[in-house]
This record gives sequence, C-alpha cells and structure tokens, in this order.
Amino acid sequence: MNKQQLIDQIKIKRSFLCIGLDVDLEKIPKHLLVLKDPIFEFNKRIIDATHHLTVAYKPNTAFYEAYGIKGWKSLEKTIHYINKNYPEIFTIADAKRGDIGNTSTRYAKAFFDDLNFDSVTVAPYMGSDSVEPFLAFADKFTILLALTSNKGGLDFQILKDENGTTLYEKVLKESQSWKNSERLMYVVGATRPDYFKKIRKIIPNNFILVPGVGAQGGDLMEVCKYGLTDEIGLLINSSRGIIYASDNKDFVEKAKAKAMEMQKEMEQIILSGL
Amino acid sequence: MNKQQLIDQIKIKRSFLCIGLDVDLEKIPKHLLVLKDPIFEFNKRIIDATHHLTVAYKPNTAFYEAYGIKGWKSLEKTIHYINKNYPEIFTIADAKRGDIGNTSTRYAKAFFDDLNFDSVTVAPYMGSDSVEPFLAFADKFTILLALTSNKGGLDFQILKDENGTTLYEKVLKESQSWKNSERLMYVVGATRPDYFKKIRKIIPNNFILVPGVGAQGGDLMEVCKYGLTDEIGLLINSSRGIIYASDNKDFVEKAKAKAMEMQKEMEQIILSGL
Repeated sequence: MNKQQLIDQIKIKRSFLCIGLDVDLEKIPKHLLVLKDPIFEFNKRIIDATHHLTVAYKPNTAFYEAYGIKGWKSLEKTIHYINKNYPEIFTIADAKRGDIGNTSTRYAKAFFDDLNFDSVTVAPYMGSDSVEPFLAFADKFTILLALTSNKGGLDFQILKDENGTTLYEKVLKESQSWKNSERLMYVVGATRPDYFKKIRKIIPNNFILVPGVGAQGGDLMEVCKYGLTDEIGLLINSSRGIIYASDNKDFVEKAKAKAMEMQKEMEQIILSGL
Repeated sequence: MNKQQLIDQIKIKRSFLCIGLDVDLEKIPKHLLVLKDPIFEFNKRIIDATHHLTVAYKPNTAFYEAYGIKGWKSLEKTIHYINKNYPEIFTIADAKRGDIGNTSTRYAKAFFDDLNFDSVTVAPYMGSDSVEPFLAFADKFTILLALTSNKGGLDFQILKDENGTTLYEKVLKESQSWKNSERLMYVVGATRPDYFKKIRKIIPNNFILVPGVGAQGGDLMEVCKYGLTDEIGLLINSSRGIIYASDNKDFVEKAKAKAMEMQKEMEQIILSGL
C-alpha cells in the first residue's frame, strides 16, 4: 500500500483508527477456547465486525510468539485473512525489531515479503544501518519508535545533548536523512500530547502511529490538536479498549460499539477540520 | 543456568567463546539442502563438532523468522537439541526485543519458559519497564544492547548529554539500578575496544557479550586488555567466521578448526592471566 491509498481510506471511512490485535488466551471469551485456533477465530470475528470502522490492524507479534509455533500460525492466518478479505486495510506488524544490516534485511523479508505486512515497527537504538534495510522495500513502511507511551520511555528518550536536543528529537531529525526516509512513520505515545507540537515541526508530513489512547490514559483530542496534518497524518491505536470491551458472548458487538465510538469521534474531527 | 555455572564452564573448557548460529540457506553446504530440515541438520553438525570448544551458542532469531513457521521449528529443535545433549552450554536468543511491560513479559515467557533459553538480548530504548519483565526470571539473563558493533551504532549511542555522558554510558549506569540488575549482561561490540576501559569502570562485574570479532574486524586481544575480569566476564561471539569457514562437505571440520583456533587463543589468555 502507498501513502495516498492510506489517506484515501482515511477519507472514505472517516476514521484514522488502528485496532491492536494483542490477543491473550486468558482474556478472550471462554467459549472460543474450544475452537481449534482460538486466537485466529477471535481475530476473525473482531476483524469482520470492525473492518469498516478502522483503517489499520496492528498485531503485536509478542502475543503470538508467546504461543510458539501455534502462535505464529495464528499470526499468519490473521494477516492472510486481512489481506484476502480486506485488502484496503493497512497492516502493521508491531515487532519493534532492529539489528545489524544483514539481519535487519532478514526481518524485513519476513514481515514484508513472506507475511505481506504493509509496515513494521522498528527500534532506533542501533542507528541508520539497522533501519535502512527495512526502508529499501517499496510501498512498505517502517515505523520507527520515537517517544513511546510507557513510563520507561522517559528513561532515555528525553535525555538532552549539549544543545538541548533530546534523544527522540535526534532520532526524528537523523532518520529524515536516511535513504528512502519518505517510507518512515513514527511511534509517539498519546500519553505525551504536549510533545506533538515540537514533533510536527521536525516531521511535518510523516504519519505518526499513536498508541496509548484509552487504557494507558492518552487523550484523542489532545493528540489531534497538534498532531493532525492536512493529510490527517495520524493512526490512533486502541487495543485492549476495543478487543476486550467484553469477555463474554457479546464481545463482537461490544468491540464494534467501542470502535464505532472512536470512529465517530474521528469523523467529527475530520469534518470539523479541527 | 546461574553465573557461577557459566564461570565454571569457562574454566573447565578454557574458553569464553560463543558461536553464533545465524543460519542462511544460501550459505550452508548444498548437500544439506536435500534433508528435511537443513537448518537444524546444519546446526546439529556444528554443535556436535564444537560443543567442547565453546561455552555458548547464540542463534539470531531473525535468521529463523525469515523462514516463517518452518524456521521457528528449526529454532525450537536447535535449542531443544542443545538443552538435551549439552545442558552445560549457555544459550542466548539473540532477539533484540523490547516492548511495554505486559508485552515484554510475553517475550520473556516465550524465550525463557517455552524455548528454555538461558538468556535473551534486549534493546534499551524503551527504558526500565520494558526490560524489568525479563529480569524477573531467576537463573536467566537479560543481555542489554549498550554499544553495538555496527556503523550505525554510533548514530545515537555515543550522543553526549550536558555532562558529557554518552547514551550508552547512561544505559549502563541507569540499568544498574533496575530491579534484579544482577541478571543483566551487556552487548558491547569488539569494534570498539577503546571503550572497554571506561565501560568496566561502570560495570566491573557484569558479563559482556562481544560480537564483531573476525568478520566485522574486531580484535580479541584488544577487547580482553580492558574487558576481562577476575571471572573472565566476557563472551566473545563469532558467527560467520566459524560456521561458514567452508561451504563444502568439509564444513564440520573447518568449523571445528576455526573454533579450536579461537579456543586456543582464549586458553592462552586465561592461563597467562593477561
């Protein structure tokens, strides 16, 4: 998928929602556990009920890896299901990878070629040659961690250099000079809305994936205030708030209702131009 | 495995070698490709021939993930094979993971419980609460990226704050105050031997995993000069230099010879006390 196609989908659906598929067997409705592949069956139902309200799905690979080979099969089935039935959806492998050059190429192939994800999240610590192998793939996006939503995100990311530039700002600035940097998106947590103004000065056009709305306490309006661009430029992720809205037989309806609630809020923001 | 057991193995084998099992189907001998699981078969032969010369094996998970579910099966078989036949070996899942708390816990379970690795490499960018879930596991080690061997390692890791402290030094210092920090090891590339003196002042006792000797140009003696401790405290990794010493039918003998060459060098260093 290219950037324009993503923007078109946002306009068509009046939504810049991303639903995080962080599936935990201890949290999904009990009646699904008797099925052969409960994780996939859960995802399938959530996807079928919400695909018209969201522009992206983001499975966090840790939740699948935790179940070993079975988990990887569930992930494979999930991404194939989305690509086959809802090819207009932007898919994100939330894997937070990053390694030296030839190894990053391996990861990029695994997620972009084999699994056919549109994008993958990558950690910046190892620098340019750990990220550029991902950027080499056309019509694919590399979503670089910048300012994360967790408490520990402040341990290193806001350290200042001699000139007062913080690490996450350095990451934003430096990465803009990397080869194929137009294929970069960034992760900035919704728990840091006050940073968006500064961030948009450095990256006025790149899409930002924003976790942390809902369960982690981030506020949608606050994020949009400075984060929105003319092309919207935001993907707001919600995982637990939507997929675990109920742990009962009504989980599909409840998830759909939650997703619709967020979509309606986003529709208003898009229509009002904020 | 606990730290003392690792140290004992180093003394018994007079080796602090770690062999990186970064298996690439394009690089292994052609005659193995007709077998059902060439990756595992390759590893098995390398392991059987070198287990007495090395104290650790380190599969880089990217190489396995690149082959999808088949690759994960090869990884699973490899770690089970080592644990069953050579339980004295220290095993490292070179996965460079790191995510928010509950997600890191998932990764930790996958690598420590399910696959039963002794250790896993973790990226520090997301801070304390992304790493502490790994540290919660007793007799398991978390190997934190500090100063990596690749060119891009210098993009962010040596950025200095107002007080002249570099990012990698901050990572070393900060992480020492995290819960269960005695279960930390660190990655420092062999391509940066001049940094070891400084590093040992911050972490006098933690083990350091050192990639980059050989193919990437790092020098063993240089690293040992400042990196060695009374308990040795180093694991020197070699991947390509050993496992791809030959791509022919003699690959097992050639790999063994290369590993022995490094072990002999290490034996001299241990005996001379450097």
